[in-house]
Amino acid sequence: MSYYDLTSIEAEYDMVIIGGGPAGCTAAIYGKRDDLSVLILEKQFMGGALITTYEVENYPGIPETISGVDLAKRFYQHAENLGAHIRNGTCTNIEMDGNIKLVHVDGMDKPIRAKTIILCTGASPRLPGATNEDKFFGKGLSVCATCDGTFYKGKTVAVIGGGDAAVEEGEYLTRHVDKIFLIHRRVGFRAAKVALDRFLGSPKVETILDTVVKSMEGDPYLETLILENTKTGETTELKVDGLFVFVGSTANSQGFENMATEIDANGYFITDNLMNTGVEGVFAAGDCRKKEVYQITTATNDGTLAAKGATKFIIENF
Amino acid sequence: MSYYDLTSIEAEYDMVIIGGGPAGCTAAIYGKRDDLSVLILEKQFMGGALITTYEVENYPGIPETISGVDLAKRFYQHAENLGAHIRNGTCTNIEMDGNIKLVHVDGMDKPIRAKTIILCTGASPRLPGATNEDKFFGKGLSVCATCDGTFYKGKTVAVIGGGDAAVEEGEYLTRHVDKIFLIHRRVGFRAAKVALDRFLGSPKVETILDTVVKSMEGDPYLETLILENTKTGETTELKVDGLFVFVGSTANSQGFENMATEIDANGYFITDNLMNTGVEGVFAAGDCRKKEVYQITTATNDGTLAAKGATKFIIENF
Repeated sequence: MSYYDLTSIEAEYDMVIIGGGPAGCTAAIYGKRDDLSVLILEKQFMGGALITTYEVENYPGIPETISGVDLAKRFYQHAENLGAHIRNGTCTNIEMDGNIKLVHVDGMDKPIRAKTIILCTGASPRLPGATNEDKFFGKGLSVCATCDGTFYKGKTVAVIGGGDAAVEEGEYLTRHVDKIFLIHRRVGFRAAKVALDRFLGSPKVETILDTVVKSMEGDPYLETLILENTKTGETTELKVDGLFVFVGSTANSQGFENMATEIDANGYFITDNLMNTGVEGVFAAGDCRKKEVYQITTATNDGTLAAKGATKFIIENF
Repeated sequence: MSYYDLTSIEAEYDMVIIGGGPAGCTAAIYGKRDDLSVLILEKQFMGGALITTYEVENYPGIPETISGVDLAKRFYQHAENLGAHIRNGTCTNIEMDGNIKLVHVDGMDKPIRAKTIILCTGASPRLPGATNEDKFFGKGLSVCATCDGTFYKGKTVAVIGGGDAAVEEGEYLTRHVDKIFLIHRRVGFRAAKVALDRFLGSPKVETILDTVVKSMEGDPYLETLILENTKTGETTELKVDGLFVFVGSTANSQGFENMATEIDANGYFITDNLMNTGVEGVFAAGDCRKKEVYQITTATNDGTLAAKGATKFIIENF
């Protein structure tokens, strides 16, 4: 992958994509197929949420189990092969200048000029809201099993959550740790049944249901969770070496509040069915958009529609 | 691929998918991931419209150019690897029996019982009705500029049609080809005026009006169109490298009229955003559904949402 240095030039693109996950890469692929000049701006690692996914089994057309990192690579190589430019950088904000959008990037003197913007900024995991939770990031508290699981080989960890993420990441943890307490605020799980049954069937997994984490304790590393039963109010202590949290997400829309006419309470861009944010020539796609199902397939759908909308906008306005 | 012989047994599935293209295979993949019993019923060849596509460059995650046939194979192998059953057969009609749907298949004594139905029957492009037109599919005759436009870089093509699709796809072709003859049976166009004027204003575009294509010639690739003027009856020859036909499509919904509360004039199932057809436990996905953009990525999106809806329906009703 070749990153483009735009620091000193006055760059202009037909399409600037903020975020290099599946939605962003798909928008780039379709943009290039429509012969647009395309820049993907990625603040961290190309691939977005994919690179924190251990294995992917449900991306149609890739029947072999593939690591998230490898699938991410296939996505951005695809975009790059078709001629999309990729640049590492954090977009701080975007200004309108008539029909042109000025994309301000940290460390660049001049903004990048864009005819259209596709926001593919993704979402970030939420924390449970327990006392002291901010103290333990990187000190026993993690939101990514793929990233941190190996540090807990032979140890005891807790997982919070009841959805697909909790189960999939928990499943991954069973490969490393000795014991997992699955803490869930309810009894019912939203996770897909096959994966759930397989996970709960592991002799390493013990469930603690109708329970929330009230507080985290330890110095400097997380040692003890204070649990509260949501039915009885009873509190108990649980000794753990680590805690993995999978209780939902907030969209990464900070700084882009002027790029959509509506953003919901969790930061998700509200779009129409064609990914328009309500600001002319600006689209949102993938995990940062309010929708029903967050999957790679729904991200590539969004990226496709956003790119088609961008092409139409350029034809009609430039 | 192993086809399942259900002729003599009283088969019952959680999910019966009518049609084995990308939407159907994706629904099967997601259905199996949710531990449903899944049957794909395909009346012709697994892969649907994909297998009539020469090369695919725009399915994200497959950066190498792949033939439609090979990509189709990856889709149905994926579904089959996860345990979906695949059966060759033509569904003649579906009856409701309370919450159960009875799927009648040509040549089978007993209907297949299904808790949910996903209609992925696809659509058929209309052709102009010219002599030899069936010979040139994938050999110079295309019904999709986005799919095949780049293969005609620097070449001369003809486009048939006078509606929005002809103009939009034609506009897309101007980015690639050197010369476009726009053949239209009338003088007046149905296409939106702004887009039409811009398209006709391209120096690459030449119109041939009041004209139909009577015959197609070439061996094995399309080389010559025999044109007939509808006013004078005069015939002329036109040499082309390719022909793109946009005279409309019809969804393959015949026999399934009772499976949706609304079907439009061209046979497309009207669904909500979650692919519900309005008949409980029945979903439509992919090219047979009324929507804005018909691509593999939008088909896999539909298949994902339909399967998620089917799982929810089964959990709530069985």
